[in-house]
Amino acid sequence: MPAAPSIANSVTVRLELPARPTAVSEMTSLIEKAGGVVTGLDVTGSGQTRLRVDVTMLTRDPDHAEEIVETVRTLDGVEIGKVSDRTFLLHLGGKLTVESKVPIRTRDDLSLIYTPGVARVCLAIARNPEDARRLTIKRNTVAVVTDGTAVLGLGDIGPLAALPVMEGKAALFKRFADIDAFPICLDTTDTEEIIRTVKAIAPGFAGINLEDISAPRCFEIEARLREELDIPVFHDDQHGTAIVALAALRNALRVVGKRLEDVRLVMSGAGAAGTAILKLFLEAGAQHVVVADVDGVVHRGRADVLSGDHPNHAWIAEHTNRDGVTGTLSDALRGADVFLGVSAPNILTEADIASMAPDSVVFAMANPTPEIDPELAARHAAVVATGRSDFANQINNVLVFPGVFRGLIDAASKHVTMEVLLAAADALADVVSDEERNATYIIPSVFHPDVSTVVAEAVRKAVLAAGTAPAPELPDPSARPAVDPVG
Amino acid sequence: MPAAPSIANSVTVRLELPARPTAVSEMTSLIEKAGGVVTGLDVTGSGQTRLRVDVTMLTRDPDHAEEIVETVRTLDGVEIGKVSDRTFLLHLGGKLTVESKVPIRTRDDLSLIYTPGVARVCLAIARNPEDARRLTIKRNTVAVVTDGTAVLGLGDIGPLAALPVMEGKAALFKRFADIDAFPICLDTTDTEEIIRTVKAIAPGFAGINLEDISAPRCFEIEARLREELDIPVFHDDQHGTAIVALAALRNALRVVGKRLEDVRLVMSGAGAAGTAILKLFLEAGAQHVVVADVDGVVHRGRADVLSGDHPNHAWIAEHTNRDGVTGTLSDALRGADVFLGVSAPNILTEADIASMAPDSVVFAMANPTPEIDPELAARHAAVVATGRSDFANQINNVLVFPGVFRGLIDAASKHVTMEVLLAAADALADVVSDEERNATYIIPSVFHPDVSTVVAEAVRKAVLAAGTAPAPELPDPSARPAVDPVG
Repeated sequence: MPAAPSIANSVTVRLELPARPTAVSEMTSLIEKAGGVVTGLDVTGSGQTRLRVDVTMLTRDPDHAEEIVETVRTLDGVEIGKVSDRTFLLHLGGKLTVESKVPIRTRDDLSLIYTPGVARVCLAIARNPEDARRLTIKRNTVAVVTDGTAVLGLGDIGPLAALPVMEGKAALFKRFADIDAFPICLDTTDTEEIIRTVKAIAPGFAGINLEDISAPRCFEIEARLREELDIPVFHDDQHGTAIVALAALRNALRVVGKRLEDVRLVMSGAGAAGTAILKLFLEAGAQHVVVADVDGVVHRGRADVLSGDHPNHAWIAEHTNRDGVTGTLSDALRGADVFLGVSAPNILTEADIASMAPDSVVFAMANPTPEIDPELAARHAAVVATGRSDFANQINNVLVFPGVFRGLIDAASKHVTMEVLLAAADALADVVSDEERNATYIIPSVFHPDVSTVVAEAVRKAVLAAGTAPAPELPDPSARPAVDPVG
Repeated sequence: MPAAPSIANSVTVRLELPARPTAVSEMTSLIEKAGGVVTGLDVTGSGQTRLRVDVTMLTRDPDHAEEIVETVRTLDGVEIGKVSDRTFLLHLGGKLTVESKVPIRTRDDLSLIYTPGVARVCLAIARNPEDARRLTIKRNTVAVVTDGTAVLGLGDIGPLAALPVMEGKAALFKRFADIDAFPICLDTTDTEEIIRTVKAIAPGFAGINLEDISAPRCFEIEARLREELDIPVFHDDQHGTAIVALAALRNALRVVGKRLEDVRLVMSGAGAAGTAILKLFLEAGAQHVVVADVDGVVHRGRADVLSGDHPNHAWIAEHTNRDGVTGTLSDALRGADVFLGVSAPNILTEADIASMAPDSVVFAMANPTPEIDPELAARHAAVVATGRSDFANQINNVLVFPGVFRGLIDAASKHVTMEVLLAAADALADVVSDEERNATYIIPSVFHPDVSTVVAEAVRKAVLAAGTAPAPELPDPSARPAVDPVG
């Protein structure tokens, strides 16, 4: 799949042209010939002999954009001005702002929100710490924490370069669940140091969203923080992905009329996401799972499992592959009902997919390039999904993390449990109605208006049913019969 | 000074009254007799025989409010409904919100601010980390960091109970300097752990504002962080207070026609604020300073200085008290030109002030109760200032920290220097013009429109003059001659 011109590589070129009748059409035709897609054209100035035009176009990448500009430069009488990159323009100054919810216009306002008034609020919280959930931003604030070691497909680019992703994540938290999220980019990759730091900053937050921390450190960091903190800790790359994958699989199996308990499921990838997906699938009832990684199928006799050096592989060997399958990923795929990949680009052939059972399901989720071109896969599989937005059935975490945290926060949950993950997946799957569901619509759009509220409500109920949260109505901080901070 | 009814203790009582002509006036008169100050009265419902009224009043404290409510309850035919505490009402849900600055309406928006578009921004920063100051929130974001050990006058109330103060501080940063500040409340009081944590979270911030961390730990934490971080670290309780105090003193001395170099200055308090004020005064040219604490005047022969157990006291003994004054604070005050206290309530008598030199200056800054009632002090001193908002000449840090950080950020400063502190103090002093300056106006109001911009500009110039910051114009992250993220 060669990259197509995309909005992510949209540029606006300001240029001047001679005011002859065909000048503009000559220019746009040059751009289109060079592979650009013109999406906007504004005449921003005009004289007797010259026109000033802003032309906006999709390109494949920055090199392509530059190539197009050089092509346009060959036009007779043209003068190229500024070339703006829309993505960079949107990022200027960062994507978040911290605002005061209270007005500060007069000395009285100061006395209420700062000294001396604030002292009484502090004392109320000192007396009853749970009141912080009513009287402070702890109520609705999530830390988006990264060490920048596994950012998108870019790898270990460090905490500072990861910040634009964390800001984007925080913006999505606000957009889809009205949660105040704030990026915390850590200048350390040491497991213990990360655990210590997150614990140290935890008091002001209602939850921790771990993000883009590389495996295997992410497992221990998440497990330890879950154990040692009294607020929910969620590693989106693991659990967010697992929830969307399970929701999509539930609907895919409904489409092909198979049951999770019965299907033979082959997974590629034993990293953070793969392991989390595996565990959730097993919890959901999957019985026949085989996992492969770069060294082929994971089984009890494999050297790395026997050596004990890979506790994660040992766990997988113990909990999957009942039939003792060995060999390559391709070997395992023969006759399988479901393939799910969170691994590497283009590792499967059309023949591999053709070798699967009838009505097979293929989730090729490697990003940005899937394990197999989804169009090739669709020749043989009944349902195909990827992580990409330019194909049907996008497995996208944005469907999950806002609603999950909204539910956890609303239930004042102290933990994330397996029940919560399962409830979120089932609720997300059920957003797609029986009437809507088909092979190209197993998962709703991220802009589906019900997604985050439905997921949030399912999570909230799961938390309350498990009884791990206090009653949602907290006692009154002023604790006075007569003088009450009435809502 | 008995507490006066104040806005910080404002309550609204909803009640029903019989609809007889004098019912409302009987009620307000009862409230006023009980010491409340009625500030608002709304009839929110009316029937043939009953009135529903919301009455808002200032009270002295919550006990007083309750007392007033009980008094009103004695009124014939009254029925008391909800009583709302205005301060608590304003704090419900916290005082800050994190908002996205970019719209997220379509899949295209997602592609620009999140994947895949954001990847190019990440890579640009990975190539040139300084670009984070253009393309991320690091540009304009300050961490307000506390461990909750010295919050207002409340002492060690812990990180969670400190959160309302930190939120208020962040709100003031936004209001007065358009800075995005975010509270970080630390669940540790260990010096090394605090240093480690702040260093770990530093990448995403343009500056660190330390807040309400108790002495002596605050000294080492601040010194070490200044040394080990490449962004400015400012301890507002020390340096903010010192800057306002110096600005106020400059103007007070102009009013009485004395010079800083000549005056005999007696300070009470050798804690965080006191030490910072002392150091800045010495740097500004003060020659004759004597410092006292609970054990009396600090001098070279004092036991704690000789023992070496108090390096801070030893430093003070070495750098002040040239004439070897000994004895009590009262002893030292005789004939002094200036008293500055950041210590304890009501430790001075009218006679102490009377014993000072003619045209004396008294800054009694202990909060909430000054070292001496300012009205008593004013009988003998030419200029009196306090930390309170209900007297003239309030020494208030809000005058300083927003502008100082605005200037530091705008200059992309990596450090806070003594030159910056002095420049801020001088600029703040000069906001009061020669025409405006008098004994009751030595420092501008926090709502004076010029304060933060004037302070910011002075700080920015001081940073650039010292050459500790790079040029304010940073190179372009796209680093392409043709395709440029144009601003």
